[in-house]
Amino acid sequence: MALIRSVFQDELDGISQSLVDLAFMVSEAMSKATTAILTCDLKLAEEVIVADEKIDDFQHDIDSRIIDIIARQQPVASDLRALVTALRMGSDLERMGDLSHHVAKIARMRHPDSAVPTELVEIITAVGKAAIKITDKTGLVISTRNTEMALEVERDDDEMDGLHRELISILIEPTWKHGIETAIDLTLLGRYYERYADHAVSISRRVYFLVTGKFAS
Amino acid sequence: MALIRSVFQDELDGISQSLVDLAFMVSEAMSKATTAILTCDLKLAEEVIVADEKIDDFQHDIDSRIIDIIARQQPVASDLRALVTALRMGSDLERMGDLSHHVAKIARMRHPDSAVPTELVEIITAVGKAAIKITDKTGLVISTRNTEMALEVERDDDEMDGLHRELISILIEPTWKHGIETAIDLTLLGRYYERYADHAVSISRRVYFLVTGKFAS
Repeated sequence: MALIRSVFQDELDGISQSLVDLAFMVSEAMSKATTAILTCDLKLAEEVIVADEKIDDFQHDIDSRIIDIIARQQPVASDLRALVTALRMGSDLERMGDLSHHVAKIARMRHPDSAVPTELVEIITAVGKAAIKITDKTGLVISTRNTEMALEVERDDDEMDGLHRELISILIEPTWKHGIETAIDLTLLGRYYERYADHAVSISRRVYFLVTGKFAS
Repeated sequence: MALIRSVFQDELDGISQSLVDLAFMVSEAMSKATTAILTCDLKLAEEVIVADEKIDDFQHDIDSRIIDIIARQQPVASDLRALVTALRMGSDLERMGDLSHHVAKIARMRHPDSAVPTELVEIITAVGKAAIKITDKTGLVISTRNTEMALEVERDDDEMDGLHRELISILIEPTWKHGIETAIDLTLLGRYYERYADHAVSISRRVYFLVTGKFAS
């Protein structure tokens, strides 16, 4: 029994490691997408768009492994909950990959023009940095199960929400001179980054709940 | 063994019925949210905002029941896949509830003004109708497992995408006279309805895959 348990534990650890790897892929995708949109780099945008398929495949592979573990090991109680949570974290990460892909698609759509006017480069840079910080921390939360760090992700998301409000307030200033189309692009961009961070928060909350049995609030 | 199998089947059917009930709640939420935004009905908007908690609770309850069934019945192969798929369909529906809630929040935020200028009432009405049609059909797909109908949902989503493109094209017309803030509201509204329909498509694809073992394309 001890041996079976140990194989199971190894399998769980393997899933956890794969989720960390997936978080790394997603972070890299969003980092490149942000650079692509800030520098009108078409090649980089297309790299992100193509890489999204790899992220999807990687997540499907994790999913299949989790379902296979449930079928073979028939875990109950906390082990089953950990596996179901891992399924959900995989979905969150996959969605974060999609959102990076959406950012890259706006960069590609506007190329060779920039979707981001010069005076907004600073805020979009900050939004991008906040997104990467939050993803990297989320990867650490998955691997270390550190609940303090999980709560930090919530605070990092407050920072993201603040940046998002700032972005929208720039768009609605009476002095805005870049027209509706650019405002629409930036509204969607803001929304993509905001949702991206929400998924990271969702992952951290799931880890927090797994470890403590309580909801982070 | 036959008896156990039958209890299990009843439990699966119960989950399926609850997902249909959840789809109905979500459809009602989006229907009311659309009326609220079109008629500046603050009371109705607040009703949708409050009802979102019920949708969340209902989904959590379905989730717990599914995990409990997996733990007790230890299903393998197709039964396990059906239960994991049910978990995912619950998440999709819960997210559709969130998006209805977002629509209602825009209605509340702009009250007593309207977020939707008169000349856009027609397209937002059409978008809202398309959303309800797609949700109601998705409910039927869950309950009947009709794969033809699942494919119809894909086509209904094409209609939604067409309406979404039409909406954006109105916003970027040079004759647009409602300013940036209204354009931002409508960009976000369009995005919420589009994502809402995407989740319905995702549910229909899951059912299609469960029944046929193939991806709908």
